Amino acid sequence: MSARVLVVDDVPHNVKLLEVRLTREYYDVITAENGPRALELARDRDPDIILLDVMMPGMDGFEVCRRIKESPDTSHIRVIMVTSLSDRSDRLRGLEAGADDFLTKPVNDVVLFARIESLVRLKRAMDEWRLRETSRESLDAIAAPGDALGTDGRGADILLVEDNAPLAANIEAALGEDDHRVVVCARCDEALKLLEGRDFDLVVVTLLLDGQDGLRLCSQLRTTESTRHMAILTIVDEGDIDRLTKGLELGVNDSIFTPVDRHELLARARTLVHGKRYQDRLRASYERSIEMALTDGLTGLYNRRYFETHLQTLLDRSRAAGRPLSLIMLDIDKFKSINDGHGHGAGDDVLRETARRLNANVRTFDTVARIGGDEFVILMPGSALDEAVAAAERLHAGLIEAPVTLAKGETLAITASVGVAEADTIGDDVAASLVRADEALYEAKRRGRNCVATLAAVEGEVVLGAPVG
Amino acid sequence: MSARVLVVDDVPHNVKLLEVRLTREYYDVITAENGPRALELARDRDPDIILLDVMMPGMDGFEVCRRIKESPDTSHIRVIMVTSLSDRSDRLRGLEAGADDFLTKPVNDVVLFARIESLVRLKRAMDEWRLRETSRESLDAIAAPGDALGTDGRGADILLVEDNAPLAANIEAALGEDDHRVVVCARCDEALKLLEGRDFDLVVVTLLLDGQDGLRLCSQLRTTESTRHMAILTIVDEGDIDRLTKGLELGVNDSIFTPVDRHELLARARTLVHGKRYQDRLRASYERSIEMALTDGLTGLYNRRYFETHLQTLLDRSRAAGRPLSLIMLDIDKFKSINDGHGHGAGDDVLRETARRLNANVRTFDTVARIGGDEFVILMPGSALDEAVAAAERLHAGLIEAPVTLAKGETLAITASVGVAEADTIGDDVAASLVRADEALYEAKRRGRNCVATLAAVEGEVVLGAPVG
Repeated sequence: MSARVLVVDDVPHNVKLLEVRLTREYYDVITAENGPRALELARDRDPDIILLDVMMPGMDGFEVCRRIKESPDTSHIRVIMVTSLSDRSDRLRGLEAGADDFLTKPVNDVVLFARIESLVRLKRAMDEWRLRETSRESLDAIAAPGDALGTDGRGADILLVEDNAPLAANIEAALGEDDHRVVVCARCDEALKLLEGRDFDLVVVTLLLDGQDGLRLCSQLRTTESTRHMAILTIVDEGDIDRLTKGLELGVNDSIFTPVDRHELLARARTLVHGKRYQDRLRASYERSIEMALTDGLTGLYNRRYFETHLQTLLDRSRAAGRPLSLIMLDIDKFKSINDGHGHGAGDDVLRETARRLNANVRTFDTVARIGGDEFVILMPGSALDEAVAAAERLHAGLIEAPVTLAKGETLAITASVGVAEADTIGDDVAASLVRADEALYEAKRRGRNCVATLAAVEGEVVLGAPVG
Repeated sequence: MSARVLVVDDVPHNVKLLEVRLTREYYDVITAENGPRALELARDRDPDIILLDVMMPGMDGFEVCRRIKESPDTSHIRVIMVTSLSDRSDRLRGLEAGADDFLTKPVNDVVLFARIESLVRLKRAMDEWRLRETSRESLDAIAAPGDALGTDGRGADILLVEDNAPLAANIEAALGEDDHRVVVCARCDEALKLLEGRDFDLVVVTLLLDGQDGLRLCSQLRTTESTRHMAILTIVDEGDIDRLTKGLELGVNDSIFTPVDRHELLARARTLVHGKRYQDRLRASYERSIEMALTDGLTGLYNRRYFETHLQTLLDRSRAAGRPLSLIMLDIDKFKSINDGHGHGAGDDVLRETARRLNANVRTFDTVARIGGDEFVILMPGSALDEAVAAAERLHAGLIEAPVTLAKGETLAITASVGVAEADTIGDDVAASLVRADEALYEAKRRGRNCVATLAAVEGEVVLGAPVG
């Protein structure tokens, strides 16, 4: 995959060397020779990946990494730290500064390209979800309560696939330090079954299994819808670059060589779990925002926007199939006086209870919507007027039979006026069929409220005007 | 990348051969020996890619492809048709049946794997946007009017990068048959500049340029945010498999060999443009659904949901910074009687005009929200009570100074009651600060409406109850 790579090193020769190798592979390369310049380019040129030298005069690589990961403008950029040392404490400092991976000089081309490809692929999937014009606050307003939990990388559910019991016990104990709950499983097929029944944040697969191929399991996880977005960490035999790169190619998120350093394992697991939770949250916000855009927050019923689109669809389908379509429109009698007389919130209680009673008394394929303050519509596909009138009588009876219990404990008797109309599926558009139903509702009001009415007039006589609302 | 591949061929030996080669590369392989079985597996096992033999007894590959692409359950699966002929008319029939590509037997492994990788990568990006629980109808309800245009693959804006003028003219003429508007450009750097200023649906890049590398341009398009999602079609010298596969690796969507067949070019361009438009539509629906979830459809102001989250954020920030925060709450006097007395829609006109006048009279960092029927709130970060009262007087004057012109042409004078309160940024939560503002509004009503009021009471005496709304 193509990617824009920012190479940061204070030694011009090193920069040049990497630039040539990366450009040959068609990466788009930009370069910086010190930390402040790197920060500037990270912000202005939107690189996908930063190859960041650790040892630089002035601001060192750790500090650059920390600042990149802290700023909302650049935190999505993936950082690979490049060091001449393979010192574990340096790796840890890097991971703690937010680095996505470490490479040791001299950098092996196969590993470098595999790592870049893997990070870019994961980054692009995330980029799809990054909110552009809307702020993080919008996300908070949409996220379900409890979603905010997912900002930490601890306390996760982890599945460990390892058939060597003592090694498994060691890893489990290490992960326990971050309050992870670890399930150990010795067989790949067993792991797949466990994953079907339960949601894990991270799967740790060792590629050291006896007679089983951990990479095959990784591939299966990535091809299955329900496990596609799970974070995967592989544990690879030291120096087994083939298996390391093949894993990255298959979509493994991160790898760690044996012998496993406890602190490094914890740091990498934390990063993966944190990323997974953030991504889950973005995905959930999408589905939730669609739901919220189409439903009424107070009652949970469909809103006017969805209703109108759906009515158009039903008109088209009914016309095509030569089947009838009826509308029931109702409102609560003297709704304004409920709010005025019973304090704030009483009206809301009545609307919620009305929605509940309506939903309980319609067929599964009828649509109940709240299209205005106390105005509800039920769409009945396949029903002609007489059937809709019978349904309306039932709905009306269900609404008024028992008083509504308000939040404060009082009860309140309500009545409702109901209009029923059959759409002219050949001549009506959305507005015209709404007018029909509205006129029927008006007829019910005219007859003294608290009743079900239809339009007595001949269809042709109905005056079509603007829809109500 | 890992992928689930469905191999369909009526000759068991052919199936086995492909299965072994694909499994060795860690693809997850399922197989079918006839069309009906292939359709079943496509529906039930959710493959990413189908390698589909053309010549099969009973239902042939074209028919299988057509059915897969027609069904909403399977249309997202990518289909590569495998044929022993390289007959152009077969290729065309396949493309018209919706096939994503063609491979000729014997299948070259390098091309096969490059094609699978490329298709899977593009598919995964789309999969991110596929709506799960919500239907296509939800999308229609969210899509902006006009978005529906994008269901066809004709009439697109296409940029053609080709330095051979006669060849460019031929391609342009061919694309004109589908009403595409083609801009021809001979240089890659010029192409990049053109793309900055204008939105194209498709870029056609020939890899035959003199002294310029078209692949470099493809890579640059993919690494730049604004052109990342553009469809790219390369024209490759017949047999130049290296450049073909490198292009696919870089994110090129499709390729065609020279000599270019006019019908094949048109068919491929149509598929790409159609896919690009559909994807744009999914992306737009995301941003739009978030906007709709947080704003009020009638006035375009923020809704109560966003308002409450934002108020919480401002309370936290104001407390942290030791700065004041004030709220102005207002409603239109006797709003109910406007609807009752002036017919449907008059109330809506008044609310829209109120929103407009409020927005025109606040500072850029103030937030105006409609939190109930005719109830508006303005949040003023950094402002203490006296400053907020001055602002409220100004808003009030702006609201009542001129009558509102209704859609029908009549004008209507309105008045409004306004309450102003400063939040106690240390002790107040969202509900408590709303109660303060509501009590101030109540005070304005008590004083005879059409005025600005604050709470005269000592802060401690304010009775905190449930928020209004």
